[in-house]
Formats: sequence, structure tokens, C-alpha cells
Amino acid sequence: MKLYDYYRSSAAYRVRIALNLKGIRPDERSFVHLRMGNQRAQDYLALNPQGLVPALALDGGAVLTQSLAIIEYLDETHPSPALLPDDPAGRARVRSLALTIACEIHPLNNLRVLNYLTGTLGVSNGQKDGWYRYWVDVGFEALEKRLAREAETGRYCHGDTPTLADIFLVPQVANARRFSIDLSPYPTLTRIDAACCALPAFAEAAPARQPDAE
Amino acid sequence: MKLYDYYRSSAAYRVRIALNLKGIRPDERSFVHLRMGNQRAQDYLALNPQGLVPALALDGGAVLTQSLAIIEYLDETHPSPALLPDDPAGRARVRSLALTIACEIHPLNNLRVLNYLTGTLGVSNGQKDGWYRYWVDVGFEALEKRLAREAETGRYCHGDTPTLADIFLVPQVANARRFSIDLSPYPTLTRIDAACCALPAFAEAAPARQPDAE
Repeated sequence: MKLYDYYRSSAAYRVRIALNLKGIRPDERSFVHLRMGNQRAQDYLALNPQGLVPALALDGGAVLTQSLAIIEYLDETHPSPALLPDDPAGRARVRSLALTIACEIHPLNNLRVLNYLTGTLGVSNGQKDGWYRYWVDVGFEALEKRLAREAETGRYCHGDTPTLADIFLVPQVANARRFSIDLSPYPTLTRIDAACCALPAFAEAAPARQPDAE
Repeated sequence: MKLYDYYRSSAAYRVRIALNLKGIRPDERSFVHLRMGNQRAQDYLALNPQGLVPALALDGGAVLTQSLAIIEYLDETHPSPALLPDDPAGRARVRSLALTIACEIHPLNNLRVLNYLTGTLGVSNGQKDGWYRYWVDVGFEALEKRLAREAETGRYCHGDTPTLADIFLVPQVANARRFSIDLSPYPTLTRIDAACCALPAFAEAAPARQPDAE
């Protein structure tokens, strides 16, 4: 299996954490430099018409895209340790927490969207930063409320072992720190983030630890 | 089970299709009028701190949120007809197609984001419409390329029975039509959309057929 990766992509960061938790080492890694536009190169687009990272090429020839689909695949084909709880309602809770990040925060704040704001729409850098912070705060407020009040929350987002929800939380918290967002209103999120980052699987997936980090 | 719904929400539309395909009839439906701001009412926020529809309240008291998490729950608890194929790579493909819509198109074009653009950022209605069209086109171009060339595409997005991918595609195509987006560059998407809309489960979930439609 070959992973198409970029150190600063938080979607790729999620997949790196999942691979580490599962103890899977891709045979090969290719680094797609997003700020240099390598995701729009013809050979990469032939592989992944969306021009996004990550992608995971399987030995049989299939190319998997979209971080959540990739991680569900890894969880189905390498069941231990499980990234989702056993009960359907628990699984729905974990997926919902992950999707709150995947659908309500991350898509609004990725590079191509920020470029559209400052380029096509001509908004100022200050307005762009305000947009970034706004969507992080809206999403984190809802997550903090849920995680603080729901009985299923444990050392991690769901109980005392890491799940899909933690895999999505940690890269988003790292992004928020990079944009100097005040995290003091989110004590549950930062507590869980710290618990995750103490685990080698999470720590070794961090952007700064990747071979292509600048 | 009680469904919190809004006729025009495409995330709720997805859940309605899934319920119809499974032959599940919620005991109760509550309509949360998004344009009137009912999603920000205290009693709704107590139920779902994200203030988004849909939500599915289970008889045991759990409240499920995020359309994809809800539909995966329905598929796990009511396995027939299956909304995902049996093989892990096929499941990853279907989830990836659905997530391309759920993460790359829909979040950029929902009501609260459009309101931020015209309100906080003061962009014109023309610029807002351009933004809407741009993200639909970027996502649909990638989807069209994949669906046109990949051998797994059949009468529907994946083979000859409807899956999660079709459930996400149809509401997004309906939205694109509502915004008068030219769909002629997407013959595969419109062919699959037509095949789906010929099925009662899809047709009866359409916004215009809901009791709260205006």
C-alpha cells in the first residue's frame, strides 16, 4: 500500500494516526506538496480527480480517497484495535463527533477555500482570519458542550480508548493552535487532546515529525 | 424514533431517502424551520447543541446527529436492503463518493455559510451565487470523472442497487437545479439522478413532497 501524504494536511494527519494505531506501515509514501500545487499535477489528478490528499493506493490497484472512508476501510480490514465501539448508538456518536469536524469545520478552513476568499472575493487577511476562527469556534463550542455533558465521554472522546472521534479532533486542535485560536473555552477538548498526544501513535503522526515538514 | 426534519435541508433529505429505502417510518416527525431560526431555540439546542438538522431521537433517549452517522446507524440496525456493498474496497468507494458531497460541496453552500458571506463579509448576491456555483462545479467535475471512468459504476453510483453514494448525490443535484446550475457537463450524474428519482423511496423524500414544504 502507498500513502499519498502532505505533512500539513489535517486529513492526511488523521490517516497517519489511524495507521499508527493499527500498527500498519505503508510500503511507500509519496509527498504531495499542496502549497506548491503538486495536487494539480496531471499524474496526481489521474490517480485522484479531486486533487486532494490523502489517497491510499492498495496493492490490487484501487485508490482510496477521503480520510474518513480510508479510516473506515482500515478499521474493517484491520479490526484490532477497534476505532469504533461495538454498539450501533455508540458508533453513531463517535461518527457524529468526527463528522462535526469533517463537515462543519475543516471544509470551511482548508487552503483552497481560504484562497478563494482572499483571491476571488478579495477579502482582507484580517477578514480571512476572522472567518477561520469563527468556524472553529462554532464547531468547537458544540463539541465542547457535547463532550462535557455526555456520559460516554471518558479519557478520550468515547470511553477510555481512542476512537475515530479522537483521530479527527487532534489535527483540528493542532490547526487551531497554529492559527493562535484561544482554546481556554474548550477545557474538555484540550484535556482529550493532551491525553491523545501522550500516545506515540498520535505524537508520531504530527506534522512536525514528518519527513516532508519544512 | 422521532425525526427532526426540515423539507429544504439536504442533509435531512438524505435521511428521509435512507428511511424510505429501509421501509422505516419514524413514530413522530418534528419540523425545525431553518429560515425562521427554530434550530436556535433553546429546546432544540438542548437536544442538538450544533443547532443543525437532521437529528434522530431514539426510543432509549439517545439523539443521533450528522446525516452520515445516522444513515450508517440505520444500515447497521436494519441491514436489508444494504446501503453499502460487502467488500471493504467497495465500501470505501461508496463512502468516498458520499463524502465528496458531504465534505467538499455541501458545507460550503449551506445557509449559515451563505449568510456569513453576505452578512459579515458583505459580499454581493452575485458573488455569493458565484461561490455557490464554483463549489458545486469543483465537486461535480471530480465526481463526474470518477463515475464515468470507474468500472464499479452501474445503473447507480455503485452497481445496480442504490447505495449511500446515491443518497448523497440526489439532494445535491436537486440543490444545484434550484440554483439554476448548468448540469450538461455532468451526464453521468444526471443519468444516475434520474434513475434514483424514478424510485418511490427517492421521489417521496423530495422537499416538495414534505408536509412542511412551502
